[in-house]
Amino acid sequence: MARETISDDTHGVVYEFSPQMKPVRTVEPGTELTFETRDSLNGVIQDDDDLLEQIPEEVNAATGPVAVEGAEPGDVLRVEIEDVRLAEDRGRVVTTPGFGLMQDDPDVEAPFTRVTPVEKGSNYADGRPRVRFQGREIAADPCIGTIGVATAGETHSTLVPHDHGGNLDTNDVTTGSTLYLPVFQSGGLLAMGDSKAVMADGEMCGTGAEIATDVDVTLDVISDPEFDLQRPLIDTGDHWKTVASAETMEEASRLAHKDAMALLSAEHGYSTTEAHTFGSLVGGLEISQVVDPLVTVRNAIPSEHVSSPF
Amino acid sequence: MARETISDDTHGVVYEFSPQMKPVRTVEPGTELTFETRDSLNGVIQDDDDLLEQIPEEVNAATGPVAVEGAEPGDVLRVEIEDVRLAEDRGRVVTTPGFGLMQDDPDVEAPFTRVTPVEKGSNYADGRPRVRFQGREIAADPCIGTIGVATAGETHSTLVPHDHGGNLDTNDVTTGSTLYLPVFQSGGLLAMGDSKAVMADGEMCGTGAEIATDVDVTLDVISDPEFDLQRPLIDTGDHWKTVASAETMEEASRLAHKDAMALLSAEHGYSTTEAHTFGSLVGGLEISQVVDPLVTVRNAIPSEHVSSPF
Repeated sequence: MARETISDDTHGVVYEFSPQMKPVRTVEPGTELTFETRDSLNGVIQDDDDLLEQIPEEVNAATGPVAVEGAEPGDVLRVEIEDVRLAEDRGRVVTTPGFGLMQDDPDVEAPFTRVTPVEKGSNYADGRPRVRFQGREIAADPCIGTIGVATAGETHSTLVPHDHGGNLDTNDVTTGSTLYLPVFQSGGLLAMGDSKAVMADGEMCGTGAEIATDVDVTLDVISDPEFDLQRPLIDTGDHWKTVASAETMEEASRLAHKDAMALLSAEHGYSTTEAHTFGSLVGGLEISQVVDPLVTVRNAIPSEHVSSPF
Repeated sequence: MARETISDDTHGVVYEFSPQMKPVRTVEPGTELTFETRDSLNGVIQDDDDLLEQIPEEVNAATGPVAVEGAEPGDVLRVEIEDVRLAEDRGRVVTTPGFGLMQDDPDVEAPFTRVTPVEKGSNYADGRPRVRFQGREIAADPCIGTIGVATAGETHSTLVPHDHGGNLDTNDVTTGSTLYLPVFQSGGLLAMGDSKAVMADGEMCGTGAEIATDVDVTLDVISDPEFDLQRPLIDTGDHWKTVASAETMEEASRLAHKDAMALLSAEHGYSTTEAHTFGSLVGGLEISQVVDPLVTVRNAIPSEHVSSPF
């Protein structure tokens, strides 16, 4: 059976995650879908002369949302990411005034744009497309920047990350990973967009190589999970990575580590202190992004020390 | 010719890095040495009942310092780390009141100790020693926690990291890496200690598995380098990693990224803005430690994008 496509053009996009989101489609658990996503800047940057004078009011268009039957608050939405394919022949990396890690550095120009042409993977032995920055070659490593569900109460624009997901800008949200999100509203209501052809951990200038993508996923629901998931969690195959967003990196680190401690306690019966000290020996803290303007930190536990919490 | 040993017992240790450090030994550039280092807690924690009620005044004993002939301010000290060998049969991971990422969490006990017995690598196919936490097996991955040189002006205890190195608690300071440090005083004056058998990125509880080690290094001097090194820099073979310490993770991230931008500009002739945006596409920010109490962040540039800056 052909995968059904959820399209930014025909189904539509959202620019905020709220408790009142209305599904563009409702599917059964186990359904395979392709999400078509546009680039975070809605296609307005096509060459180096196109400059972003300010963050647009509508940014990080997220295709959807899609409801999954049977998903209820307290459940977990399981998003298996089978493939993230680049869907246009260029990305773009930009600076914008008042945004990004170096916004107060007088030597950094803003606005500034570099279009990053993409060459097809079939031209290369490893099958990976190539992204060019001023001629320099980078092997593509696509990720989904914004992905999330309807929130518990508050409304968050697609520019910010929080416990519902949102603008996580996390390299591990990529082909081969499975993302687990808490369900706060009936159906979960998943939307995604804002993909990158490639992005540094940190996303320091405020973007990666922003690009349209086609994303193959399988959606499922874990009902009444034993583990109380409060924030996004990623299974990369090698690691279980907790993902936490907050106003400071210190606070995001605390939340990501606390979630990792909960995983270790659930797995091994560790006390909080045992989980804290064991968690100070293996894997550890990683930076997703430092610019959104809430920041996102993850804590990676090697899979040999945690099987599935669900 | 046998390597000369610099021993914590016979040559001595320091507990601060200052401009006035006196060398315990002066060697020629290219000299191969073994530094014997004791554990960060001076051997006082030997079983789970030994508790650390507070951070001792003398902590992170650093063996040395060793002067290298010809090293002058503005030069770079090159420390090739050939091997970090575990030198005792146990490590220890501890919490202490008022220290660590979770110090305000009422569920975390402090003080608390877990001794982590070490089994010899010759018992395992991969040759790596095993560290045990409550029976659970972790493959050892030793690193040097505190390593640095005489400072430009201020005096820093071995508890804190800064531009001279010091308590960097960085997993990449390990076997196979080369560490580059700025020279602020004649001879450089290198001292090291505070090794871990294994440590998570972040060192959240305040320690890894603290342990005595024997460290084989070759010391060299890069005179009048073209690249103006301001802070520690690590060549891991796969990546060039800038290393920056500051009061907040945001500020440490800015410094680490600024240093990475300088590397990219030196290599490719990029403007500051070009280096900033290119640096937002590849590699990225990593967390060394969040507890010392200055925090340390690194920025990793894949070696395909930077050859040696020296």
